[in-house]
Amino acid sequence: MAAEIVNPRSESEADRTGQEGGAEPLDSFDPAFALHRGGKMAVQATVPIRDKDDLSLAYTPGVARVCTAIAEQPDLVNDYTWKSSVVAVVTDGTAVLGLGDIGPEASLPVMEGKAILFKQFGGVDAVPIALACTDVDEIIETVVRLAPSFGGVNLEDISAPRCFEIERRLQERLDIPVFHDDQHGTAVVTLAALRNAARLSGRSIAELRAVISGAGAAGVAIARMLVEAGIGDVAVSDRKGVVSADREDLTDVKRELAGFTNKAGLTGSLEDALSGADVFIGVSGGTVPESAVASMAKGAFVFAMANPTPEIHPEVAHRYAAVVATGRSDFPNQINNVLAFPGIFAGALQVRASRITEGMKLAAAEALAGVVGDDLAADYVIPSPFDERVAPAVTAAVAAAARAEGVARR
Amino acid sequence: MAAEIVNPRSESEADRTGQEGGAEPLDSFDPAFALHRGGKMAVQATVPIRDKDDLSLAYTPGVARVCTAIAEQPDLVNDYTWKSSVVAVVTDGTAVLGLGDIGPEASLPVMEGKAILFKQFGGVDAVPIALACTDVDEIIETVVRLAPSFGGVNLEDISAPRCFEIERRLQERLDIPVFHDDQHGTAVVTLAALRNAARLSGRSIAELRAVISGAGAAGVAIARMLVEAGIGDVAVSDRKGVVSADREDLTDVKRELAGFTNKAGLTGSLEDALSGADVFIGVSGGTVPESAVASMAKGAFVFAMANPTPEIHPEVAHRYAAVVATGRSDFPNQINNVLAFPGIFAGALQVRASRITEGMKLAAAEALAGVVGDDLAADYVIPSPFDERVAPAVTAAVAAAARAEGVARR
Repeated sequence: MAAEIVNPRSESEADRTGQEGGAEPLDSFDPAFALHRGGKMAVQATVPIRDKDDLSLAYTPGVARVCTAIAEQPDLVNDYTWKSSVVAVVTDGTAVLGLGDIGPEASLPVMEGKAILFKQFGGVDAVPIALACTDVDEIIETVVRLAPSFGGVNLEDISAPRCFEIERRLQERLDIPVFHDDQHGTAVVTLAALRNAARLSGRSIAELRAVISGAGAAGVAIARMLVEAGIGDVAVSDRKGVVSADREDLTDVKRELAGFTNKAGLTGSLEDALSGADVFIGVSGGTVPESAVASMAKGAFVFAMANPTPEIHPEVAHRYAAVVATGRSDFPNQINNVLAFPGIFAGALQVRASRITEGMKLAAAEALAGVVGDDLAADYVIPSPFDERVAPAVTAAVAAAARAEGVARR
Repeated sequence: MAAEIVNPRSESEADRTGQEGGAEPLDSFDPAFALHRGGKMAVQATVPIRDKDDLSLAYTPGVARVCTAIAEQPDLVNDYTWKSSVVAVVTDGTAVLGLGDIGPEASLPVMEGKAILFKQFGGVDAVPIALACTDVDEIIETVVRLAPSFGGVNLEDISAPRCFEIERRLQERLDIPVFHDDQHGTAVVTLAALRNAARLSGRSIAELRAVISGAGAAGVAIARMLVEAGIGDVAVSDRKGVVSADREDLTDVKRELAGFTNKAGLTGSLEDALSGADVFIGVSGGTVPESAVASMAKGAFVFAMANPTPEIHPEVAHRYAAVVATGRSDFPNQINNVLAFPGIFAGALQVRASRITEGMKLAAAEALAGVVGDDLAADYVIPSPFDERVAPAVTAAVAAAARAEGVARR
């Protein structure tokens, strides 16, 4: 018979009933605090430990035979441990939600949230790892050292442009998927919504000219993905205006961006670029004046994804645009990363992919768009996060794409 | 309604039914492999995510308020995340069980086993972290960077003498408990068994002279703890014989050991030291000849803890000794670390101790010994790992000791 569980959180119960006072007022004031008390996740054993026979299989002496087998044939670690089903959710706390650089401890509620979304929607185990370092080399070195324990690395809320180098160099050094969700998750869901908006209006993506507001992690990744998907043209605007090759204030990443976007050679402000544009994609947190929205092409798509305040309020956008999407759950067409990352990792882990390729991300976007099917409408270009068809569709598409691209290992 | 869970392990099911072949033969050959397939642990959400209202509390936008509160008042991380209930089980894979330096991946089954024992017996969440580095400075730096995510660090299977320096320097740098279980867990359980053996024979620990075979992690920690507990005398023997101040081949750790052990100034071999000794404690993996056991004092205690082969077979030991203990579950009196580490961490986490002091370890040993109570007998000096009274008793004693020693923070 198992020993009674002694819960180290038990004293939190005292807090909850107000016996110790402490932070209890926060909990009664705000249900988010009450829900977060004691954290949002736990570990569980998936094998029984009821008696000494169980113990002798799960632990010594039985475990030694499994260790020896892995030492002799390293791939077996994926069969006989949780490695191939667990993802590290790694942050340095420098770009957390819209809150900015709040440090590793304060980022933990977000990382835990991410971890339970991985589990809930993708069946993927995930562990929050908030690092007490912000130096690029140190972060890379640390994650490389952790990697033997994990089947994948989800980078989260690491500020640009450091996030680009960290992801690239980590993927070069590791043979497990390294995926910066703020970039690629957002890009996948955006592309899915755009595909469906185009389908609704009877146009191909190649006919569209898009403008992205924001040249951070999400903006750069969306631009790259739209180009991969064959967009007609896409221009990206940062705080100083449209990113173009003739600007002399560009970082390396933005210079690269200028090289593969903005075929039209636009210069000037975001508002200038929006004139006649077919698509607005906001990942900046700024605001766009109504006059600029009015200047867009007829039947435009407005994806104003800043949270909590969209760059363009949906009511305003609807006066001019054919399709409107936001990042918020209280409006239709929510562009929510949770539609992508659980299935993307589940698919990659299922076939033990060594990385997540562009093809796998495109396949994810296509599968996600496909879930909408015949129900496509202006207020339904992207499924709900709670649509049960989403994760299986994305998982299957990503696994198949990994096989097709030669990065699957089973 | 929640999305259907897509289990990335699902293809393992195919293996299990033999469809993909692969490593399947191992599973039918050995139940330890069958049990380990897919790993032994998982993550679970402890809050519901059934609809967008749940999502808006557990994730954005609600989570942002919790993050902001922690950023303003860092201690709140212990109230509103799982940090204060989760322990990192950290290894570099250099001294795994009796298998030696098998590397991080091959060590994972042991670390997972440890993690689920933490949960099962102490209600403590634990995460296996097997590091791809063996340099002392690198291990320390890596664990310091990980520390924001964890309430404690359990070091495991790191080879001596590196383990001593790693533990000491990590505890200097971190304000959460750092505990090398191979040292202190073993020492706590050994002391508990010794206390009861002494009680059974009507002697005090101060009257006993002990000999420890093995000057690695466990041997050094046991020696230190027996001295703390007031043992009459204790000598430690390594492969070259008794550790004594006049030896010129001693490492720093063994020189220190020579300073506080072996008051009698013994020299020579382990067998020499055993002559007339009251207690033998084996943590070496060697063998001790029957003649040496026969030379011990009348009513001796033999704790032959090497696994799987005790230094002295229990049948042989029983010919001469009054109390015999081993590390094995198939003999009475199993000296098993699982009797200590779950409750020690549960107690330390419950009061948010900044470290695990000698006093807390002594309290753990006393509480563990106390569970045996009036049922004390030669074949029952230590409780079973499945005795439900063990973890609560150790937890309470450790929490109280932490408060008494001024290292508790709640």
